[in-house]
Amino acid sequence: MEINDLKIPKSDITLPKKVKIFDTTLRDGEQAPGVALTTDEKIQIAQKLDNLGINTIEYGFPAVSEGERKSAKLINDLGLNANICGLARVLKNDIDALLDCDLSYMHTFIGTSPLHRDFKLKMSKEEIVDKASSAIEYAKDHGITVEFSAEDSTRTEFDYLVDVYKAVEDAGADLINVPDTVGVLVPTTSRKLISNLKNELSLPISVHFHNDFGLAVANSLVAIESGAEQAHVTVNGIGERGGNASLEELVVTLKVAYGLDLDIDTTQLYNLSDFVSRVTGIKMPPNKPIVGENAFAHESGIHVHGVLENAATYEPIAPELVGHTRKIALGKHTGANALKAKLTEYDIKMDEEQFCTVYDQVKGLGDKGKSITDADLKAIAVTVLGKAKEEAVKLIGLSVSSGSGKTVSPTATVKLMINGEEKETSSIGVGPVDAALNAIQILVKGTTNIQLEEYHIEAITGGTDALAEVFVITSDEEDNKATGRATREDVIMASVDAVLNSINKILMIKEAK
Amino acid sequence: MEINDLKIPKSDITLPKKVKIFDTTLRDGEQAPGVALTTDEKIQIAQKLDNLGINTIEYGFPAVSEGERKSAKLINDLGLNANICGLARVLKNDIDALLDCDLSYMHTFIGTSPLHRDFKLKMSKEEIVDKASSAIEYAKDHGITVEFSAEDSTRTEFDYLVDVYKAVEDAGADLINVPDTVGVLVPTTSRKLISNLKNELSLPISVHFHNDFGLAVANSLVAIESGAEQAHVTVNGIGERGGNASLEELVVTLKVAYGLDLDIDTTQLYNLSDFVSRVTGIKMPPNKPIVGENAFAHESGIHVHGVLENAATYEPIAPELVGHTRKIALGKHTGANALKAKLTEYDIKMDEEQFCTVYDQVKGLGDKGKSITDADLKAIAVTVLGKAKEEAVKLIGLSVSSGSGKTVSPTATVKLMINGEEKETSSIGVGPVDAALNAIQILVKGTTNIQLEEYHIEAITGGTDALAEVFVITSDEEDNKATGRATREDVIMASVDAVLNSINKILMIKEAK
Repeated sequence: MEINDLKIPKSDITLPKKVKIFDTTLRDGEQAPGVALTTDEKIQIAQKLDNLGINTIEYGFPAVSEGERKSAKLINDLGLNANICGLARVLKNDIDALLDCDLSYMHTFIGTSPLHRDFKLKMSKEEIVDKASSAIEYAKDHGITVEFSAEDSTRTEFDYLVDVYKAVEDAGADLINVPDTVGVLVPTTSRKLISNLKNELSLPISVHFHNDFGLAVANSLVAIESGAEQAHVTVNGIGERGGNASLEELVVTLKVAYGLDLDIDTTQLYNLSDFVSRVTGIKMPPNKPIVGENAFAHESGIHVHGVLENAATYEPIAPELVGHTRKIALGKHTGANALKAKLTEYDIKMDEEQFCTVYDQVKGLGDKGKSITDADLKAIAVTVLGKAKEEAVKLIGLSVSSGSGKTVSPTATVKLMINGEEKETSSIGVGPVDAALNAIQILVKGTTNIQLEEYHIEAITGGTDALAEVFVITSDEEDNKATGRATREDVIMASVDAVLNSINKILMIKEAK
Repeated sequence: MEINDLKIPKSDITLPKKVKIFDTTLRDGEQAPGVALTTDEKIQIAQKLDNLGINTIEYGFPAVSEGERKSAKLINDLGLNANICGLARVLKNDIDALLDCDLSYMHTFIGTSPLHRDFKLKMSKEEIVDKASSAIEYAKDHGITVEFSAEDSTRTEFDYLVDVYKAVEDAGADLINVPDTVGVLVPTTSRKLISNLKNELSLPISVHFHNDFGLAVANSLVAIESGAEQAHVTVNGIGERGGNASLEELVVTLKVAYGLDLDIDTTQLYNLSDFVSRVTGIKMPPNKPIVGENAFAHESGIHVHGVLENAATYEPIAPELVGHTRKIALGKHTGANALKAKLTEYDIKMDEEQFCTVYDQVKGLGDKGKSITDADLKAIAVTVLGKAKEEAVKLIGLSVSSGSGKTVSPTATVKLMINGEEKETSSIGVGPVDAALNAIQILVKGTTNIQLEEYHIEAITGGTDALAEVFVITSDEEDNKATGRATREDVIMASVDAVLNSINKILMIKEAK
């Protein structure tokens, strides 16, 4: 056995000829507690999913509200390549709502496990089969495509599950979907369940797996190896509780490890993930596979050394494949090789002793903070080389006033010492922070033309006397960029300190040139 | 086949008698770009891991820095039950650094794949085997336990990989570790690789799987089914790039689905995850399995209906198993059943028409916001029942002043209309927001004793003129709680608006009682 490239040997697996991707970000993803998308946001996500090459988009649940029905019509009218699917219980009213929206694809479901029969539905096995069959017959009479889910199928007695699915096959369903509603499968049980169902049923099998144990993607892969021809996914894996199988993880693994051609443009994945993150408010952690901010970031000395020689040493795929970028981070674990490579890149020459001083300072800073930009590194180098002047800009005094009246704007007066000379001005702004930073910008204009590139208040939870941490990036007309950071109880003072900190670094780099 | 409980039938799998958990949060987890732990934080995490029942704790990399060696000694001196392990390259210096710290467990490694041999190490196959063997012999001469990793083993030629592992067995290693360094395994290849290695080797096999495709936990489970007796994990799955196998997901799945007794106290998992999140700064998304804020939260009507009848309908495990809590969230997808249950719980009686009005308002609010507390619901109900008075507290005027001097504190003057009566006072604070809220608290004290429970500025990225969104929760002496929310360009005004919004809700509930 050779496992020295990423592809699984074809002899080890059998795969369906074509695997389809069914995205339910707009339905099951939106059901995540706290998420609510506007019609306009739904339209934008649907368009992006269609550009990516998704086969079917479950847009929502028509019976839920007038807003959902309006979204259905608008998304339907876009004329996308993907099928637009709506969810419906096996109820005539739900199906009528879906038909009213002119949708031609229905995903319908009813619970089949003992828990769902006894506690939620309070229905017998036979009643459930009858309701499902009649609903499907009704929908098929209206000529639409029907995908049927036996909710909580993975906790349903296998023989009864087969009875249900055979009945819906007879009723005319087009696709059998197997939902792992509370995410209890593991790869071994996923393989067994799907293989056994495949032996019993004639319709194509689809899977809809939840992620309560973190196994939704793995279980979907194994299901596809066992004959499933479609998988349900959501962008970023968002959804109820632990979420659903993640679109980007499933698609990239099928492409890279299984060599499957899904006709999906993976280079759009990073941007799509970022967009969904913003509109849903569900931020992904840096260690989210494929699309997280650290997915292609390297900090430790050993790893950076390898990546500088050949990125594949510590990367399974190139970041470009998913529209992401590689990042060499400086921090506590930075090695000498990475640092030397960076200094050479900036054409900064120093002897071994000076290098060691820079190296120690970077490691020390990394211990305290989180990120060290290229300009931060330049500022350290310039200081070590003895080329740095004392702080060019110092705060002498600041006063701000702000109020609730509509007649006067928040105002700040700032007095700075700039290269030994006192300067003072006032400015208005939309708030006191804005006013203070406007005044600083005016005062330093004689020296350098500072733009605020990024301004970020770290989320503060606790009392109003908690510390506010402000992080800024400023740039000058030559596109030198530097970070500034300050932590104070007063958010205005923290903002001013952070900006001055950043401006001084830029001036230091300019002086040294 | 019956899959109506969570346990995999014993007949379907063979498992090792004992599976050990090796935690590397403090070493591989800390190598995540941007993470740097202080010695004190490392000590606290090590203690928590030991309380949990982890078998071996990889605390760090002694050769890296003086700080790492200091941490080793301090953690070693705690006298924990777990083995304390340090990382070392197959270099005499690295091993000496580890021995100097009196560690008795070493994890040592060298790259074995063609990529690592040719680009990073620039060494031949034979040189690598020799270096690994001599290092292990040297370490064993000093009487310590040795676990050996062939780095990038999953992209190494299988025959050569066996040669390497057999050589280190001969050299006296105690454990063979199989690292999937760039996370390229899928369950099918994990099963094949570990089964084949198990056939060739006599030492116990450990696995260290990365999560680049989101499969680290699944691959570890399959490896354990294939004979691996130890798995490396990190809390929250943090680590380089997509991170490592997540401790909480692996442990809970082994316990619940595999019925394995790991002697691990799973009820501590939620708190441990939260602690690691705080000290590393790596926040988990709400849909993180097992420990995410939504792992046991339910909002959609159908799900809440099921959970109210029997929580198991939509939960794979009880939240108490991992020290978490269940949450019924109100929002866009809230169903009538959930809402009726909540109103009954608060002993609020209304007719069907009034109920429909409340229901529509909750859905409407859910469309705009993210969370609706119980007090928000009470406030809506009270209004619909016609028991609400007009806003009790209104802002008439506000002025704040703040500056950089050390002599005077930030000051705010607030004028409020409280139940038709104008009241005005001033207060100082650590910043202008604190001062303004102190003044409000003083003014409403005659009416109710308000405590600020939570104050949260949503992270703002962009210019200083971007909108600040402030979210607060206040409570009174009877423990009524209400949220308040405001979005303004001026962070001080947004804070004042949010607090007054929240206070008015509380007063409304009191009035109605």
